[in-house]
Amino acid sequence: MAEAKIPKATAKRLPIYYRYLNILFNAGKQRVSSTELSEAVQVDSATIRRDFSYFGALGKRGYGYDVENLLNFFKKTLNQDHLTNVALIGVGNLGHALLNYNFRQTNSVRISAAFDINEAIANTIQSGVPVYPMAEMKEQLQIQQVDVAILTVPIEDAQIVADELVDAGVKGIMNFTPIRVSVPATVRVQNVDLANELQTLIYFLDHYGSETTNNSATE
Amino acid sequence: MAEAKIPKATAKRLPIYYRYLNILFNAGKQRVSSTELSEAVQVDSATIRRDFSYFGALGKRGYGYDVENLLNFFKKTLNQDHLTNVALIGVGNLGHALLNYNFRQTNSVRISAAFDINEAIANTIQSGVPVYPMAEMKEQLQIQQVDVAILTVPIEDAQIVADELVDAGVKGIMNFTPIRVSVPATVRVQNVDLANELQTLIYFLDHYGSETTNNSATE
Repeated sequence: MAEAKIPKATAKRLPIYYRYLNILFNAGKQRVSSTELSEAVQVDSATIRRDFSYFGALGKRGYGYDVENLLNFFKKTLNQDHLTNVALIGVGNLGHALLNYNFRQTNSVRISAAFDINEAIANTIQSGVPVYPMAEMKEQLQIQQVDVAILTVPIEDAQIVADELVDAGVKGIMNFTPIRVSVPATVRVQNVDLANELQTLIYFLDHYGSETTNNSATE
Repeated sequence: MAEAKIPKATAKRLPIYYRYLNILFNAGKQRVSSTELSEAVQVDSATIRRDFSYFGALGKRGYGYDVENLLNFFKKTLNQDHLTNVALIGVGNLGHALLNYNFRQTNSVRISAAFDINEAIANTIQSGVPVYPMAEMKEQLQIQQVDVAILTVPIEDAQIVADELVDAGVKGIMNFTPIRVSVPATVRVQNVDLANELQTLIYFLDHYGSETTNNSATE
């Protein structure tokens, strides 16, 4: 199916739709209306219909959406039909938590290798994931053909390691460090700045109370 | 100063501006142009000028912005001049990492209490933060006048605990669980869905390559 270039906000909602469709499917549900879906995912039904419209008319008026069809469609769109291996750079407190984090809710993403400069942890297996010394990062990323990395190194190492990742051919970086790393235009960076998220929440509470509807970092 | 109601995207950039202004100020810099600021924070200078315009004209043509004035202004706007105490609910792997996470880059936010049902960890101090049993959550939140909580409990407990937080008077929840919790309109939820962030990064790489500029979860 030819896809129109979809808005980022829509793309970010796709995994949410996918997750709930999985739940519905596993519960034996065969069809779902946009209103039902709306309540479950807390996105208004007009937005849901608009989001779905980017992918062609998937629903029928008066019937709603066929759960299995929709699920299979999203599975393909989100590449849930193949496994993406991801590397984790920096096995500190946050890195360790991410090794244990359930990224595999839909079995399509897996941290397959981790890297750390700490010699006490390098060459061990942590939470089922091999931890290699930093000196082997470039070689291992290339051998394992990993092109997405999660960056959880100390702030002062962030740019150096980002440069090394780019050099190793990594195309996407999920950056948990609070600095904005510089990368070539050929590399995509997704910043996850937890202090900023918390500060923004507090800012909105202080300034506007809680008068508006729920926010999402992913919207 | 009377503030116009500012867009969420602008509010989310304020902590980023603030952080870099701090760095500039500590380096002894007295003024900064929107172009310089733009390069440092990777936000285009037109956006910076528009963001700042919501707060009144803070810069002068041909001079740029006075670093100290701007810093003091943001400090007030972001309530950096007082400490906000935050609670953490659920001291598992991610919760533990967050106890060690440097939310205090600007000394204005602190996790002051944590809660867990695990009796082995309750009534101990972890990373400098007291961990109370869940049974004491409501009482402690009220005594300590905490109205912002970070939710890092298992998915199956998320809604129950969110209900308890609301009952205890919490006004803001930073939700790290993958489900969308239901709360009254008087409570603000900031969802941080790490699996979704990673999946979105991979989705964009697979579909569009890395042709566009950097993304941020906080935009």
